[in-house]
Amino acid sequence: MDYQLYYWPTIQGRGEFVRLVLEEAGARYRDVARETGKGAGVAALIRFLNGRNIERPPFAPPFLEAGKLVIGQTANILQFLGARHSLAPKHEGGRLWTHELQLTMADLLVEIHDTHHPVAAGLYYEDQKKEARRRAADFLKHRLPKFLGYFEQVLAKSARGENYLAGMRLTYADLSMFQIVAGLNYAFPCAMAKAARKCRRVFALHGRVQERPRIAAYLASPRRIPFNDEGIFRHYAELDAG
Amino acid sequence: MDYQLYYWPTIQGRGEFVRLVLEEAGARYRDVARETGKGAGVAALIRFLNGRNIERPPFAPPFLEAGKLVIGQTANILQFLGARHSLAPKHEGGRLWTHELQLTMADLLVEIHDTHHPVAAGLYYEDQKKEARRRAADFLKHRLPKFLGYFEQVLAKSARGENYLAGMRLTYADLSMFQIVAGLNYAFPCAMAKAARKCRRVFALHGRVQERPRIAAYLASPRRIPFNDEGIFRHYAELDAG
Repeated sequence: MDYQLYYWPTIQGRGEFVRLVLEEAGARYRDVARETGKGAGVAALIRFLNGRNIERPPFAPPFLEAGKLVIGQTANILQFLGARHSLAPKHEGGRLWTHELQLTMADLLVEIHDTHHPVAAGLYYEDQKKEARRRAADFLKHRLPKFLGYFEQVLAKSARGENYLAGMRLTYADLSMFQIVAGLNYAFPCAMAKAARKCRRVFALHGRVQERPRIAAYLASPRRIPFNDEGIFRHYAELDAG
Repeated sequence: MDYQLYYWPTIQGRGEFVRLVLEEAGARYRDVARETGKGAGVAALIRFLNGRNIERPPFAPPFLEAGKLVIGQTANILQFLGARHSLAPKHEGGRLWTHELQLTMADLLVEIHDTHHPVAAGLYYEDQKKEARRRAADFLKHRLPKFLGYFEQVLAKSARGENYLAGMRLTYADLSMFQIVAGLNYAFPCAMAKAARKCRRVFALHGRVQERPRIAAYLASPRRIPFNDEGIFRHYAELDAG
């Protein structure tokens, strides 16, 4: 195996951004916490977080073992894998730009999560429903159009044919954009139906990534965990303004 | 000039993490939005955000011009500057680790911001005071100890003498850790007085960075904008549980 991925076994969450890159790269990897047996399962993940005998303990999943390296933070893992598997530009300007786009998506992801957990990640949704309504309404009215409009503008500017966010070739940022649109479609179908009209390029990119052979095969496989209401993208009808 | 930094002129905000690196590196830079005259001021910053005639428009400040490059996203800028100015390890494992730490601090920073703006960044604090109380209480009880405890553990593990987060040499992550402790001390003096007892290494690191000649000179200069209640770190006594 080339890689061991550690992430919570029942949700797509942030781990999914790593899985998509590993799948598109055709890398051999174990999804450790989803396996059973010795040295696997959630216990193996927790052992890393406890940090004993680990030189560089990650703060939270996902993290990736690659030989002797243990790499945490989603965008950091993607930057590492992107360089190794030709899923990022080689020249400095393109590399920095791809990572910048990824970090902007990471910001968006936090805001998506906080629509259903504006008060505390450790509390149930039911304990912050009222606050969630306020936050989700603001998110859908102001933040979502701003973010999607930004990525639409980036794709429109891509002088070389609008194919991908950072130019003519697929990068890890495109895989993440796919995942964010997929997740938003699940969580906020009404709001996204509206957004689709204004952000045709973003939605077209989602479609192009979805049809890539390795991604299509992955999405159809049991390795793809279905969206559910424990992850970052949750569908609560009362939060989705039509 | 080597660099042009673009950030809002009246707050430390995320721009401060870049300023600290530029100052420690002894780099020549312009803080464009704080200057007046043609091609300066906030108007110059807005022009970049509007994205016309800019190949790779940033989503938000701070962003940095370095020759022909325009680099956005704080952690991305720091990674770039760290490599250029020997404020990051040269080997892959150390580089990844430093960036991982930085991204964990970026996560913490969002949570700090959201203590006073849990509903919407676009609304006034006064319009979300009740929600802020709930969020801040949870943050101080659960999240702050978890984050500071993590960095304390990282410093304790640093086999080579506990001097800096990523080993014996100062990196951009240490400068950011300094800024986060400084900001938290301003925003939550009661909670931080408690935390100081449990996280001695983190606070000692803050002290060591503060005393570095270039940082000390910077902090004493008018280039350092004082903390105020428009930035990320705000002092609202009602949010600071003693």
